[in-house]
Order: sequence, then C-alpha cells, then structure tokens
Amino acid sequence: MNGSAEETANGSAPKKRGRPARTSTAQGPGARDRILTAARAEFAERGYDRASIRAIAKGASVDPALVHHYFGTKEQVFAAAVEVAFAPALSASDTLLAGGPDGVGERLARFILGMYENPATRDPLLAIVRSAVTNETAATVLRNLVTSKLMIRIASELDVPDPELRSELATAQIVGTVLLRYVIKAEPLASADVEKVIVMVAPAVQRHLTGEG
Amino acid sequence: MNGSAEETANGSAPKKRGRPARTSTAQGPGARDRILTAARAEFAERGYDRASIRAIAKGASVDPALVHHYFGTKEQVFAAAVEVAFAPALSASDTLLAGGPDGVGERLARFILGMYENPATRDPLLAIVRSAVTNETAATVLRNLVTSKLMIRIASELDVPDPELRSELATAQIVGTVLLRYVIKAEPLASADVEKVIVMVAPAVQRHLTGEG
Repeated sequence: MNGSAEETANGSAPKKRGRPARTSTAQGPGARDRILTAARAEFAERGYDRASIRAIAKGASVDPALVHHYFGTKEQVFAAAVEVAFAPALSASDTLLAGGPDGVGERLARFILGMYENPATRDPLLAIVRSAVTNETAATVLRNLVTSKLMIRIASELDVPDPELRSELATAQIVGTVLLRYVIKAEPLASADVEKVIVMVAPAVQRHLTGEG
Repeated sequence: MNGSAEETANGSAPKKRGRPARTSTAQGPGARDRILTAARAEFAERGYDRASIRAIAKGASVDPALVHHYFGTKEQVFAAAVEVAFAPALSASDTLLAGGPDGVGERLARFILGMYENPATRDPLLAIVRSAVTNETAATVLRNLVTSKLMIRIASELDVPDPELRSELATAQIVGTVLLRYVIKAEPLASADVEKVIVMVAPAVQRHLTGEG
C-alpha cells in the first residue's frame, strides 16, 4: 500500500512519477516507510491540527523536504498514514467477503474490533477517529477513504436495495461501538468481554448488510 | 433541569445550598440560564480545551465569579451545559418508553436523529460529541451522564439479559449513524432522507433493546 492516489485507485504498479527509486535516495532504503511510521505517531500523539511535517521528518530521521517530496502536503501525508493504518482492513475485506454473505457481519465485527483490541493498531486508529471528528480536512480524508474504498468493496457484493447506505449503517454500528467502548469508555461496554460484544453486535451488522440476522 | 448533581440525582427540590436566590442576585433573574446558554455556545465554538470561564461570563454579561459561584469548576460548567442539552432527551425517555417495547427502537432513532436535524439543537450536541472524543474530562462527563441517567432509565424497562450492555449497543448504532451522517458526512448517508435513515436504523436499535426487530 503506497498511499498515492494514482497507485491505489487503479491497482497497477507504481509509476514513480517524479519520485526517486528507493535504492537511489540519499536517505537510503526504507525512508518512505520510516516517514509513514513517524507520521502515524505524530498524528496519534498531537492530532491533525498540531501535527507538523518538521516533527514527522525528525521522527523519521530525514529532511522535511523529503517528506514533501514523497507525499506532498500535510493533508496528503495524513491520507497516506491513514491508508497504511487501514491497509489491513482493506486487504482483509476481500477475505471477509470471500466467505459469502453468511456470517459476514460477525467476521467484519470481529476483524474491526480485533484491530482496536490490539495495542499495536489501536492508537493509530483512534488517532484517525479523533482527528476526523475535530478537523474538517481529516474528516474529508477519512470520508473519501471509507466511502470510496471500503464501502464500495462491501456494497458491490451485496444483493440488496441501497447497498452503499446499508454498508454505512453497518459501519455506523461498528464505529459507534468503538467510540463508546474505546474512546468514551462507557460501562459495562468498555469492560465487557470482546467476544461477547462481537456476538451481540454481529446480528445488527449482518442485518444491515444482507437483510438477515 | 438545574445541572447540579444533588438536585438531579435525587429528584427533590433544589436545596440552594450556598446559592443566592434567583431574585436577590445583583445580576438579576435569568443570569443562571444566560450562563448556561453562553456556556453551550462557547463549548460548541471552541471545544472543551479552549473554552474559558471568562468568555462564558462575558457572553452571559455576568462576572466570572458568578459562573464559579453557580457551577464551580470548568468541568462542572461543562457538565451542566451538557445536561441542559440532553434534558429534552432525558425527559423524553419516559415518553419514548411509555409506549411499551413495540416500536421503541424507531421512536428512539426518530427522536435522537430529529435533534440533530434541528439546527437549534444540532450544534450543542455536536460540540459534546467532539469534546468527548478529544478531551478526557469531557469524555468522563458524557460517560457519567449517559451511563448513569439515560442508560439506566432505558435498561430498567428492558426485560432481557444484559439490559445495560444492550442499551449501549443500541446507543452505539445511533451515535455511529450521527457521526457518519453529521460529522464525517459520508455519502450517501449524509444526503439520505432522514425518514429513510430512521426506518433503516430502527430495526437494529429495536433488536438490541428487545431482542426483536
């Protein structure tokens, strides 16, 4: 997952337009990944508004100009960092859907809540939710990503009326559960066994997606 | 709805402990309501972290000392402002539940989404969601309010296992829908007819609350 629009939209090989080959950059191989890692940490810690390209560059041990060179504006850096954080979900959506409609609600709920249960993936995901709620730019990035990628993938598999709207209402159930459990920490939801939560959430998700539950 | 803990918790008449009678204050009657109105506007515009007692006092045309006198700390001012914004929901919850379990999911969805459709109530409610997502103090206030008041009222009427957990998962469906529709503005959800959204959300809410849908 490379994070530039033209690469992910058409799924073809990177064109490397105006971009140095990884092995030829003075920063050495891996600089791009280090920048994305540093960007996730910076956005997670400081939120979109207060995050700075300078701090991201410092965290990645590169010159700020290289951050701009690879990704462009701060908004584009954020989009790339978000896309990396969502990459497991996007690549998993094929697997989740491959099993057919039966039980897709439970598989989806288990997968997404599982990412929030995992400390390694929880913080960047929470940073995205927090930034998107408070910053219009971050909200646009998340909106475009959710509606244009994840939703279209799920909706395309659904043989029901209003597949996109249904996908979003299924997402709403999961996002709302994430918000109350991991951000607001409302009890008893926050302390409930995650497996119990998954089983209780799954029928609502399933019903939205397939009309059954 | 007065907003101080001792008055709302036991439902008895205000004790006015250490508080001047409304008609005897130099600020004149109505100062308390003006402070709450100004507080809602300030928290909505600037968020919890950047809101100031001084600005709230100025907006209400009172001395900052009177704000502290009536409500105490900034956190307590926020709690009171939130409680006022939630007051229609809290007083309506009796009405919503009075109709019995049949259709309670749809009545709840219609009522809450209706508050977000109304420009007069949308902004303070969105301010609460935004503050709660980004500020730990605001999250605690919202958590205590939701779990201790609204949830207990709803849960107490449910004759199902895990009534509080079920109430929270129903809330999660509605809160997630609010988030995607009004904050993230994901399409087609953001532009969908609200009545259509209510009808599609209602069965999930109903199923959480009563096990039927």
